[in-house]
Amino acid sequence: MIKNKELKVQALEWTGTSLKVLDQRLLPEQIKYDEYFDAQGVYEAIKSMRVRGAPAIGIAAGYGVALSVIEHYSDTNKNWKEKVADEIKKLSTSRPTAVNLFWALTIMEQQLYKQTDNPKVNAIQQAELIHAEDIQANLKMGELGADLLADAKAVMTHCNAGALATGGYGTALGVIRSAYKRGLITVYAGETRPWLQGARLTVWELAQDGIASTLIADSAAAWLMKSGKLDWIIVGADRIAANGDVANKIGTYSLAVLAKQHGVKVMVVAPVSTIDFTMESGNGITIEQRSSDELLADCYSENKSLVSAWNPVFDITPAHLISAIVTERGVILNPVEKGVRSLKA
Amino acid sequence: MIKNKELKVQALEWTGTSLKVLDQRLLPEQIKYDEYFDAQGVYEAIKSMRVRGAPAIGIAAGYGVALSVIEHYSDTNKNWKEKVADEIKKLSTSRPTAVNLFWALTIMEQQLYKQTDNPKVNAIQQAELIHAEDIQANLKMGELGADLLADAKAVMTHCNAGALATGGYGTALGVIRSAYKRGLITVYAGETRPWLQGARLTVWELAQDGIASTLIADSAAAWLMKSGKLDWIIVGADRIAANGDVANKIGTYSLAVLAKQHGVKVMVVAPVSTIDFTMESGNGITIEQRSSDELLADCYSENKSLVSAWNPVFDITPAHLISAIVTERGVILNPVEKGVRSLKA
Repeated sequence: MIKNKELKVQALEWTGTSLKVLDQRLLPEQIKYDEYFDAQGVYEAIKSMRVRGAPAIGIAAGYGVALSVIEHYSDTNKNWKEKVADEIKKLSTSRPTAVNLFWALTIMEQQLYKQTDNPKVNAIQQAELIHAEDIQANLKMGELGADLLADAKAVMTHCNAGALATGGYGTALGVIRSAYKRGLITVYAGETRPWLQGARLTVWELAQDGIASTLIADSAAAWLMKSGKLDWIIVGADRIAANGDVANKIGTYSLAVLAKQHGVKVMVVAPVSTIDFTMESGNGITIEQRSSDELLADCYSENKSLVSAWNPVFDITPAHLISAIVTERGVILNPVEKGVRSLKA
Repeated sequence: MIKNKELKVQALEWTGTSLKVLDQRLLPEQIKYDEYFDAQGVYEAIKSMRVRGAPAIGIAAGYGVALSVIEHYSDTNKNWKEKVADEIKKLSTSRPTAVNLFWALTIMEQQLYKQTDNPKVNAIQQAELIHAEDIQANLKMGELGADLLADAKAVMTHCNAGALATGGYGTALGVIRSAYKRGLITVYAGETRPWLQGARLTVWELAQDGIASTLIADSAAAWLMKSGKLDWIIVGADRIAANGDVANKIGTYSLAVLAKQHGVKVMVVAPVSTIDFTMESGNGITIEQRSSDELLADCYSENKSLVSAWNPVFDITPAHLISAIVTERGVILNPVEKGVRSLKA
């Protein structure tokens, strides 16, 4: 099994014939894994947000395709590739913004058309490779990001870009883990409404690893910055455009504008698979809107016409507000200057 | 009974011998009044946040002193004033930031030392006068604020500076009510973590009056501003310093910084009783910190040492980020220039 052995909890566990998915909706109160044996199940797991975080979604989708190949491939079934292709299409509709999803599905699909004696083994190996490489990338980014922090005394993160959102170790939290080993003292986490990824996942995940953190209301971040106590904002990304604009959890743009005004630096940490080189700028990125039920009390359904909600899940932070984009292929300082195109393989 | 007859729900109802307090902690699911017959009860009602909002706290405290006089005054009890003074002192410790509280208590205390045949009637009349004048002030501010909005298409408010936070009609929501009558179309409300005054109180209160509103996560405000859809941020205040710095619900400072960056104007609406003319600038204002339990899940009590919370209830918005301060005595445009000292009677 692919895993980061340092961590106590994995978002995803591949058993060889099934994918176990930690139901992150139940954290921190309950640790419960659901087991999926087919692509449809993995589609549900992503759509229902049992698993979330762009890299983890990509990894889960990879295993989903492997399960599809396991189910449909046989010497006698000539149409198995069509069935798998259909399920890949289905998986691609599970979440609209995470580009890693499409990236992983493309890799898995290309694998289908390679000449091989054993498509099942091949698909499994490819999915495991995506997973293993993500962990390696996390560890690399952790070190590169920690290098940038230098003498920083306090950092703040938003949402959960941690082990729970990746193959293990995390992107933003990977940097925080690496920096913690080097002596970083204070970690603040925004609670991240409406889904409370910060309150439910980030502080929990860090505590599992023995790292202390302080939770704040999202709207308290500016006041914290004003106090002069914060050096860096460190976040993950759901999609990065070629010019360095970053789509990430709603509230990231807010933090970046506030950071600029308070002399706080902004670091975005994400694997190259998060970069959409075909997208020239953030303007082209589709922003997922989620149900207003995430914000509204049940009782408002009675007078629906008068109380509504606007619930975008992501926002776009323009490159000029970002101090550094950290990837496993290297660091881009001041992405506004030349974007992230130099990272293309 | 002092009330704004246009409104369906009152935060406070004075019966003549008791104060009924709407338990705002239970809204919007449940409308329940608790009845208090003495100052100690009113102290509890304020401390427990059954009643909140600076003007409403002041009004409640006024009635609390009236109840104290009713309880302790008699022809035979020579020490009644000392007992009332003790209870005034107690009431003054119920919440630390709302200056209206101290303002109302001072007025009630001064009343004690006036020559009168009937201290009970006198105290009741004074408390009722504070209440009635607050409603009148709200109505006046509503019109003055609406005048400023001119052709604004959309406004956003934060926390609840409404009928529920005042004697009736509201400060920020008073302006929105007045503007709505003149044709203002779109009202956004931030949910206002951690207590969710926006989600629980503001959109509910507006819907009671037939005014539609759209709830957003606090951290989505910047993205809404970026869309160019927002013209004004309209908020109340818990305390205003002589130089025009404003203490208000945590997140107000954040909104004001973001508004400045997006060309959105900021209006603070508050009665003159909110102004602390003795406080030169916001730097001197004590910021109330509330329990970390408001942010942390129950399960974190087990590993308290690793997960903590920072939970300031208010922040200070410097005058230079405020476009206008609206009071019942008039409007101060660009308070950074000369502060609000000209409003002193």
